[in-house]
Amino acid sequence: MYHKHHTPVFFCIIFLLLTIGSAVLSDEGMWTFDNPPNKQLQTKYDVTLSQDWLDHLRLSSVRFMDGGSGSFVSKNGLVATNHHVAIGQLQKMSSEQQDYVQDGFYAATPAQEIKCADLELNVLMAMENITDRIRGVVKPEMSEHEALKARKAEIARAEQEYHDKTGLTCNVVSLYYSGEYWMYQYKKHTDVRLVMAPERQIAFFGGDSDNFTYPRHDLDVAFFRVYENGKPLVCEHYLRWNSKEFSANELVFVAGHPGSTRRLSTYAQLKYQRDFFYPMMLDLFHRRIATLNAYAQKGAEQARRALPQIFGLENSKKAYTGEYEGLLEHAVLEACKQREDAFRKLIREQLEWHKMYSGAWDTVTTVMNKQSEVAKQQFHQNLRGSRLAGIALTIVRYVVETKKPDSERLDGFHASQLDRLKFYLLSSAPIYPDFEEASLAGMLQLSLDELGTDDPFIRLVLNGKKPEEAAQELIGGTQLAYVKARQELIAGGEEEARKSSDPLIALAWKLDPMLREREEWNKKNIESVLMPATEKIAQARFAVYGKAAYPDATFTLRLAYGKVKGYPMNGTQAPYKTTLYGLYDRALSFDRQGDYELPARFWERAAKVSLATPANFVSTCDITGGNSGSPVVNRKGEQLGIIFDGNMESLSGRFVYEETKSRAVAVHCAFIIEALRNLYDAQALADEIEK
Amino acid sequence: MYHKHHTPVFFCIIFLLLTIGSAVLSDEGMWTFDNPPNKQLQTKYDVTLSQDWLDHLRLSSVRFMDGGSGSFVSKNGLVATNHHVAIGQLQKMSSEQQDYVQDGFYAATPAQEIKCADLELNVLMAMENITDRIRGVVKPEMSEHEALKARKAEIARAEQEYHDKTGLTCNVVSLYYSGEYWMYQYKKHTDVRLVMAPERQIAFFGGDSDNFTYPRHDLDVAFFRVYENGKPLVCEHYLRWNSKEFSANELVFVAGHPGSTRRLSTYAQLKYQRDFFYPMMLDLFHRRIATLNAYAQKGAEQARRALPQIFGLENSKKAYTGEYEGLLEHAVLEACKQREDAFRKLIREQLEWHKMYSGAWDTVTTVMNKQSEVAKQQFHQNLRGSRLAGIALTIVRYVVETKKPDSERLDGFHASQLDRLKFYLLSSAPIYPDFEEASLAGMLQLSLDELGTDDPFIRLVLNGKKPEEAAQELIGGTQLAYVKARQELIAGGEEEARKSSDPLIALAWKLDPMLREREEWNKKNIESVLMPATEKIAQARFAVYGKAAYPDATFTLRLAYGKVKGYPMNGTQAPYKTTLYGLYDRALSFDRQGDYELPARFWERAAKVSLATPANFVSTCDITGGNSGSPVVNRKGEQLGIIFDGNMESLSGRFVYEETKSRAVAVHCAFIIEALRNLYDAQALADEIEK
Repeated sequence: MYHKHHTPVFFCIIFLLLTIGSAVLSDEGMWTFDNPPNKQLQTKYDVTLSQDWLDHLRLSSVRFMDGGSGSFVSKNGLVATNHHVAIGQLQKMSSEQQDYVQDGFYAATPAQEIKCADLELNVLMAMENITDRIRGVVKPEMSEHEALKARKAEIARAEQEYHDKTGLTCNVVSLYYSGEYWMYQYKKHTDVRLVMAPERQIAFFGGDSDNFTYPRHDLDVAFFRVYENGKPLVCEHYLRWNSKEFSANELVFVAGHPGSTRRLSTYAQLKYQRDFFYPMMLDLFHRRIATLNAYAQKGAEQARRALPQIFGLENSKKAYTGEYEGLLEHAVLEACKQREDAFRKLIREQLEWHKMYSGAWDTVTTVMNKQSEVAKQQFHQNLRGSRLAGIALTIVRYVVETKKPDSERLDGFHASQLDRLKFYLLSSAPIYPDFEEASLAGMLQLSLDELGTDDPFIRLVLNGKKPEEAAQELIGGTQLAYVKARQELIAGGEEEARKSSDPLIALAWKLDPMLREREEWNKKNIESVLMPATEKIAQARFAVYGKAAYPDATFTLRLAYGKVKGYPMNGTQAPYKTTLYGLYDRALSFDRQGDYELPARFWERAAKVSLATPANFVSTCDITGGNSGSPVVNRKGEQLGIIFDGNMESLSGRFVYEETKSRAVAVHCAFIIEALRNLYDAQALADEIEK
Repeated sequence: MYHKHHTPVFFCIIFLLLTIGSAVLSDEGMWTFDNPPNKQLQTKYDVTLSQDWLDHLRLSSVRFMDGGSGSFVSKNGLVATNHHVAIGQLQKMSSEQQDYVQDGFYAATPAQEIKCADLELNVLMAMENITDRIRGVVKPEMSEHEALKARKAEIARAEQEYHDKTGLTCNVVSLYYSGEYWMYQYKKHTDVRLVMAPERQIAFFGGDSDNFTYPRHDLDVAFFRVYENGKPLVCEHYLRWNSKEFSANELVFVAGHPGSTRRLSTYAQLKYQRDFFYPMMLDLFHRRIATLNAYAQKGAEQARRALPQIFGLENSKKAYTGEYEGLLEHAVLEACKQREDAFRKLIREQLEWHKMYSGAWDTVTTVMNKQSEVAKQQFHQNLRGSRLAGIALTIVRYVVETKKPDSERLDGFHASQLDRLKFYLLSSAPIYPDFEEASLAGMLQLSLDELGTDDPFIRLVLNGKKPEEAAQELIGGTQLAYVKARQELIAGGEEEARKSSDPLIALAWKLDPMLREREEWNKKNIESVLMPATEKIAQARFAVYGKAAYPDATFTLRLAYGKVKGYPMNGTQAPYKTTLYGLYDRALSFDRQGDYELPARFWERAAKVSLATPANFVSTCDITGGNSGSPVVNRKGEQLGIIFDGNMESLSGRFVYEETKSRAVAVHCAFIIEALRNLYDAQALADEIEK
């Protein structure tokens, strides 16, 4: 299945948009709702989307800040998404006594619904282009570093201003890498309750083996309900389900929040990804999985605690492996190179463009070379694997930054961002110290192995101790697992926090200067140089290709389109859909072993199930991680399914979209309805959806 | 599915055996029954096969001279094989009014069984090593050409002698390329009657798309009954079916008749295959398919007439494409090169071996270069696409050769071979002149395109006419479609035949000298030089590796072994078996369109079918084309299934066996029994098998 979006762990370079020539002919693109692919839809499908159609779909779409997408599916605030988007919250409301991840959950009445610890949902209410405002603050006399600071300050100011004006959560989004700045204005929901989730066994049927593959048969769905003032949210906009009409080759759309693509990275940036980023990340996944598996083997409760993280890591590992293999394939990188060469040739041929833009690519190459030199060190000089460590590092910054005037604060600590920050910082979600300790120790060992004992980060954190010892002292001694301890630290301000004897807080105070120095170095040497260069490339692209193009993914709402269609696979054809016959076939083909066993109800009630019901289906829609949970709708705007994965062949779509074999995989609504009615005794829920 | 064995169209070089080092550890090999892989079975599976076990399996195994394998499955001469092995005979007994290929057939009583036009089955009764006898006739003073002739004459003599002695059909088989000569002695059956065949729709479910792929769901089975003296053959040896016990990883065996492999071709021979043989063959398939499709589109009856040939050609095209892609893959050819280099190094290191054998590889290279020069010309100077043209060419040879003393005759016309020859020559199978004409015209056009108007073959055959005109005159004018006309020509002898005004016979008389000249050139320049060279390589191999090895496939009985096991596929795992759930899933996944529709009875009786029944399964057994119809047996010698295909990943097994992904695909006996009892009302047949 698709990895949910997660913010890149390591560095943050924003990438550029794609569109040249033949791309227009394929079902390519993750389009912003202000700039839908009208021309392609008219030319290829003879369809024109009305503004009402677009608005309705946008206002029915939901962003999960956990990383994922969803949609409203009833007028009473019911939200459908993937089980694997919900799994974090399911885990947080579970305990040794009651495991909702394993057993599933259904609230037959509203009173039985369970409130989530820290789930935030967003609905995009409005978007406004504020490019001129943000660009306007940069003056010619400013250095690159000063220009960067000025923009960041203006962004923070604008966000606060819009929030004050609208009451909405307002984020500036940089599209087309500083080609445009938009104010995205969200209605934020934090009273979200679990309504229904099936057993993980059927949501993730086929396990890591079948993940990112197709034909597939997963019931990867979960339902939440949004509350406002203690009552179910009354939805003006929600998607009606159509589980009856569905056919091969029909036009469909996906509205969701793709996390990140790198389709218009320069060749130098892609080589950096190939040679540094991916090898380091895969190494990290490998090590973390090994560490967590060792922990999980200690017992059933340990296995339960570790499961969602292991699952997420396995998922990321498989996705990154596919993406990495794409980069290693000569053809993918060569396609990027050719695209870049053709583009640069057009720029060179017009003197004015040449003067303004041609130098930008060399600048990017220089920056990437500089980044390569520090890549390994910066990657491993990090405290990983411990949520408590992350909390400690955030608290020591919080108490310092919030004393400053807003415009001087670090990103993430502006006034407009504090609500969200505290929501997560003070979450009541359980933290298991023994798990934290094992996980932190494993990650410290990796840093030690990679950096050696003489590295300043290692000296500071380990101080001659073994990773296990250090982790034991830090996690064993900290009080941060208690929300109250965090609250007191935040409330006490810098002076109190500096006096704290909590070992994690003490370590954070020691580490923070080193991290700040590094961030400052990165801003000065990487970000502030890269930004104007890639901005120039973006402007060059507008000059050459106009705006008949979409920006790279930014975990903001996008529209994709395509057709329901199988594809050539392994010497034959993969079908456009699978059926429940196929689900039982696959279970029995593997003798119901391991991840191929079904929940007991699937056997007990097999006779009640209509086996010809569509299970999953594929379309050519252009999606990526973060689209998990996205509604698939037909041209009437009716929901047909829920995106939960891309196939193996789609993974190199992070760099190049390819229509022949790349497919988005969705759970069919008919499977969900069939399961609710005939397997889960969830008539009320099915009725609410189908009403 | 697997292409049935067919004799290489173009040239006939015999290839060598494989076995070095690590090969022994994998489930590799197509072993002769005199030399079973005892060591591997003991080491890997802790199993020792008794002589009784081997004899029983051998005597229960059947060779289909149409190209394929089968097994006796009742004491009353019942034989099970694949539908695609039977399809030629099904077509021959069909007509515009009654199409057994499409509709299937079941004889509820023996009286309803239909006798086949020209089906010959063989059972291997005995084998005797006569290497010394054949080698003994070659004297030092003989030229290579003379030596070749002497061996061939001795082979013919020995075959006649053994036939006279035993009453059996006796063929000399050259194994390990002249490393050994064996007299294989067969009981021949020509009164064979059709008992049951399902509709081609289910036998070849998924069509050309699913062919050579897996997971798969085909009921690729047909039943014949062997008669002797007008009564069902009483079988002492037949395989009992076990459709109940079956599990992943269990040890299984396959007894069948693999047609041809090239595992120990020299590097030079493989390069010839890659650069000449495969491109020409694929071109030929492409052209023939296009020609036949054009004919088939003229109407339903035309489509029926062309179907089996189109099917066979599509099948071959997919198989050859897979094999060719294997050769184009650097890794496959490189593996062969490394194997050869390692072998030659061992030879060089011992002076005696070096002197005797080292020169052989260079000789092979020289011969292959010579062959390359004439490859295109020889390939296209052939009358193809017309059975009548083939009959004409055979008749003009028959009347000449049979006048000669046996030792001077061309291969194929020795006294011991005439029965079989006449069996086919005088077959009553229908021949459709309009089909012949269209097919011949298409092939003449290919020859014309490739050779040009000035080529002597083209001049002789077309004589300035267009291919369509020539084909119309030849097929329109010939009487050879009538068995009587053929009988009269054979009976009349050379003098009468030379006077024949039949245009195909007249053309055959003109062509024959050119073809004889070419064959003589090939014997002198290719075969007689190549034979001693490759024989030396074979002897070198015996010297280095002993006889712990199997010879390349020769369409003679072989034993393969392995385990029932899935494999890594397309990012996930292919299961070791499929079920009937999967059959219905695949039909519905494609909306029952085209080759994914099931026969009506599968829908009408769906409720009667036990969906959990295994459909097809895979094992690591080492097989190739010709193994179609082979029984898969467990260690008790009970039949579990019938081989009908290899997966895509196995196609490069023609050159190198690879255990990780290469799989043999079989119909499970449980599927057959379930279908007979609950779909085909064939209780009597099921009872006979299960008795």
